[in-house]
Amino acid sequence: MSPKLTGEILRQLRQAMRNCKYFSEPIQAYIIPSGDAHQSEYIAPCDCRREYISGFNGSAGTAIVTEQHAAMWTDGRYFLQANQQMDNNWTLMKMGLKETPSQEDWLISVLPENSKVGVDPWIIAADQWKNMSKALISAGHCLVAVQHNLIDVVWPDRPERPSTQLRTLGLEYTGTSWQDKVTMLRAKMTERKIGWFVATALDEIAWLFNLRGADIEYNPVFFAYAIVGMNTIRLFVDLKRLSHPVLRDHLQLDAPIKPELSIQTFPYESVYTELQAICAALGPKDKVWICDKASCALTQVIPKAHRTPIPYTPLCLAKAVKNATEIQGMKMAHIKDAVALCELFAWLEKEVFSLIQKRKEYRNTKDFVGLSFPTISSVGPNGAIIHYRPLPETNRTLTLNEVYLIDSGAQYVDGTTDVTRTVHFGTPTAFEKECFTYVLKGHIAVSAAVFPNGTKGHLLDSFARAALWESGLDYLHGTGHGVGCFLNVHEGPCGISYKTFADEPLEAGMIVSDEPGYYEDGSFGIRLENVVLVIPTKPKYNYRNRGSLTFEPLTLVPIQVKMMNTELLTKKERDWVNDYHRKCREVVGAELERQGRKEALEWLIRETQPIV
Amino acid sequence: MSPKLTGEILRQLRQAMRNCKYFSEPIQAYIIPSGDAHQSEYIAPCDCRREYISGFNGSAGTAIVTEQHAAMWTDGRYFLQANQQMDNNWTLMKMGLKETPSQEDWLISVLPENSKVGVDPWIIAADQWKNMSKALISAGHCLVAVQHNLIDVVWPDRPERPSTQLRTLGLEYTGTSWQDKVTMLRAKMTERKIGWFVATALDEIAWLFNLRGADIEYNPVFFAYAIVGMNTIRLFVDLKRLSHPVLRDHLQLDAPIKPELSIQTFPYESVYTELQAICAALGPKDKVWICDKASCALTQVIPKAHRTPIPYTPLCLAKAVKNATEIQGMKMAHIKDAVALCELFAWLEKEVFSLIQKRKEYRNTKDFVGLSFPTISSVGPNGAIIHYRPLPETNRTLTLNEVYLIDSGAQYVDGTTDVTRTVHFGTPTAFEKECFTYVLKGHIAVSAAVFPNGTKGHLLDSFARAALWESGLDYLHGTGHGVGCFLNVHEGPCGISYKTFADEPLEAGMIVSDEPGYYEDGSFGIRLENVVLVIPTKPKYNYRNRGSLTFEPLTLVPIQVKMMNTELLTKKERDWVNDYHRKCREVVGAELERQGRKEALEWLIRETQPIV
Repeated sequence: MSPKLTGEILRQLRQAMRNCKYFSEPIQAYIIPSGDAHQSEYIAPCDCRREYISGFNGSAGTAIVTEQHAAMWTDGRYFLQANQQMDNNWTLMKMGLKETPSQEDWLISVLPENSKVGVDPWIIAADQWKNMSKALISAGHCLVAVQHNLIDVVWPDRPERPSTQLRTLGLEYTGTSWQDKVTMLRAKMTERKIGWFVATALDEIAWLFNLRGADIEYNPVFFAYAIVGMNTIRLFVDLKRLSHPVLRDHLQLDAPIKPELSIQTFPYESVYTELQAICAALGPKDKVWICDKASCALTQVIPKAHRTPIPYTPLCLAKAVKNATEIQGMKMAHIKDAVALCELFAWLEKEVFSLIQKRKEYRNTKDFVGLSFPTISSVGPNGAIIHYRPLPETNRTLTLNEVYLIDSGAQYVDGTTDVTRTVHFGTPTAFEKECFTYVLKGHIAVSAAVFPNGTKGHLLDSFARAALWESGLDYLHGTGHGVGCFLNVHEGPCGISYKTFADEPLEAGMIVSDEPGYYEDGSFGIRLENVVLVIPTKPKYNYRNRGSLTFEPLTLVPIQVKMMNTELLTKKERDWVNDYHRKCREVVGAELERQGRKEALEWLIRETQPIV
Repeated sequence: MSPKLTGEILRQLRQAMRNCKYFSEPIQAYIIPSGDAHQSEYIAPCDCRREYISGFNGSAGTAIVTEQHAAMWTDGRYFLQANQQMDNNWTLMKMGLKETPSQEDWLISVLPENSKVGVDPWIIAADQWKNMSKALISAGHCLVAVQHNLIDVVWPDRPERPSTQLRTLGLEYTGTSWQDKVTMLRAKMTERKIGWFVATALDEIAWLFNLRGADIEYNPVFFAYAIVGMNTIRLFVDLKRLSHPVLRDHLQLDAPIKPELSIQTFPYESVYTELQAICAALGPKDKVWICDKASCALTQVIPKAHRTPIPYTPLCLAKAVKNATEIQGMKMAHIKDAVALCELFAWLEKEVFSLIQKRKEYRNTKDFVGLSFPTISSVGPNGAIIHYRPLPETNRTLTLNEVYLIDSGAQYVDGTTDVTRTVHFGTPTAFEKECFTYVLKGHIAVSAAVFPNGTKGHLLDSFARAALWESGLDYLHGTGHGVGCFLNVHEGPCGISYKTFADEPLEAGMIVSDEPGYYEDGSFGIRLENVVLVIPTKPKYNYRNRGSLTFEPLTLVPIQVKMMNTELLTKKERDWVNDYHRKCREVVGAELERQGRKEALEWLIRETQPIV
């Protein structure tokens, strides 16, 4: 992986920063966030501006360019990768380390007095704008909204915004019609005396209308906005996409059954002017709901007196708790995925090869739609690059002497999967086994945890780390994220991370990942990930009638016993492993048998032998 | 405990709320917070306004009185107690339960349109004012600062503000002179380009000047403010208190060595006008530091452009990390306390009596100054009132058949203690033992935890609960608080609680309590508390050279083995108990022997026999 040479584009960007065509006065710094106008985690190629200017293509990072400096903030998952992808023009700011300044503090330390800092208001979230602006003003500078994106100015061959075909999902997949979802949303609005709701997150809009697209790789979503009032529904989307009769029928565009469930459609770009028009007609007490993570540009259209920003929208909260149809779909999807993985692993033991293509092919089953994120498949030291993706230059051949980490997931029509296994085809070292076992202990501690209703996920994060901490080890990423149902593999409002305190309490029906890891720089990476469903449980007592919750693993792929130092496991942990493997054998074994996949079945039976 | 009858004072308060002598228009609601003008946790009798109006005397709670309603918000520690102390005029709002509205939401739901809500700006913190004001404005109401406290209006025999004698502490106790502390403070101010610092927390002021008082029971502090500039130090205190030559010499009032270390003294009440004068003379770029928890009244004196509110002041942060002299003092204080407790417990086993007086007497050793908080000594069902204090009406005789909980602490000249033990002098039931053992497992899980440098205390909170959760049990309070050194028994900025996310990372030298519990309403209460010191530790590995921390118990009082179901303990937990008891025997045993306290020594040896 050789770094991108950025000298020339940085020169052009700095020229644009001085060019008063774009603003009244030159700016001294320009902020380039990762996101798109919807604050999506994964973004379309046309929105990869931070990657274009710096070469760094990890999923999280913010670049800031001043006259003299170019600096990149990213988190522990990407320290190694960013170092490899960026040239000497860039300074890496390692977030989470004590000595690393915040973006605000750094700007204040390097800017000349009375500086102007520019940012595109469509790709900075309203809450981030507010914090940044406040900090800059307190130091005598100011934050300026630059309407024309300056990276686009210096990016001659920037790709177009995608507009893929939309897919409708029937009740057999969603369990709830879009009409019922709109009605539920309006009930929440009535409850809080809110007249309008602006939906900006792409997965929320896809979920609301029971539609899926393929505008963003891995995320089955499409570029759109929606504004829901008590009597109207406005959908903003490339209108060409709505021509197919199946789609028009699904959305009842031509013959709405009830007037309040009739959808008006508008071009994607007209959301700004349409929201302005709505706001101009607001009564003095009318309130508009918008997520506090929505773009600054759209948020500020709503006059402050009418604006009610919320950390999680009612769609986000409702979507997180899966209904029975969705849970059933997710279970089916995970069995399909386990079948594919058993087949792959059985085959792998015999062959040494370049993995990625094979992997995709193995999943090529009935309901397979695509991957849910780029496969992370790494050997030996590459595993320590937490989100490593194989590239021709750094690809390593699979050998008998190295730890192999594979983190991959798929979109099926009935659910989304995400699984990480770490295996060794030869003989792991004692240290590799030791670290693997600590990670396993952490995985089990979360998966088997019993906790009261109302507990927030971040309170479980330390369970995943206790065994590593005891030996002086740790990992620099969160432990789990929410998982959508045939939607984004990462979704809010729940998760398991030491970093997030604004997460919503875990509830039965929510689905999250459980994925502790350990990464030894330059040597190997270990991660162990299951997708788990939050379920009610009944322990011996029931304090204050609060009820208790625990997790049920949806992922059913064996965990390699060869990598475990079973002496470090307690009896309880060994029982957990054996119970889990018994379930893998029963559920996935039956399916392998039905499909006549003998080799994979034999492999499964071998890999799920009880440990003692 | 019969409830206070509040019908008449509520009538008078409501009359005052309508009386335009105190404001331009009548107010529809009046908020009565717990605190004093320094946001102290424990308060002087003259500041017990919330207790006066409601009867409820727990340490935390906020009362709101409207024309029709009177409501009290308090947390899980006080649900039972508040119910017993308040009459039918009051509604108890149980904080932390899902169905309980926030104060803002409740006010919005009960107030008529365009209401005015009053509060004394001296006893509401600036950040609370801001949140409350914002919420009320967004619903069409407003928050009004009522300069004349309305409780004082209806409180004819309100006590005077205390002004006790001040005590100076020499270097042998503090390890650092007040001059060096001022110099360190100014270095922090220079680093952040801050010209002035306003100190409002009483323990910070006591720590800064190496002075102690006795204005507030249990907290060795005195009513004062301080304003430190780069060349001046202003101390606001009842000037009568500064007449003693020892004090004048300690503060160098008559012959300051350097002009920038000369202290100007002012009457306590003049802080408002003096701060106004300082602010009037500020240059356009001058900044003033004040804690965001300081009173709204004082905070708003500083023009917004000059105000830099901080969650933790540099004094709070420096005070939290104890120096070698302070740590040595804390260790000595805990040995003295353990001696007193061994003596008490040894004696207790023989006698049945009213405990409180005896307890105080037992501590009457050389350096004893007073208690560090009111002793909680409870038998059977009273133990379930988490902060129960024995009163004549509800006091129960100690019997052989009930669980006995004692939570008490002392101020010694060299340190502050806080210990809870739960014992049974007869035969505990299997359920009592089971619950005790879960609490013990949680206590050990925190005390023995190894965690990286930079970890915040709230990430350890779930360790204390895991064993209880697994059986469906829990406790509704935090797990630990910072402990001062001959200062307040509760201090920031660190702690161990699921509720606080703004805590500062734990650092070697910090001191916190570790006190999980379990409370069975109407039956018994269990809590197990040690004061523990954060110390560096060296586990097998050292990931990214971050270094690791763990805890060393300072409290050295045996934990009753009779209460344990040792079968529920793992080998590691049994080893922890045996190691801890060995240390109790060695350190406290030597001191008991030296003092010739034979009975206590025999008891100690019996109670610290290893378990198998």
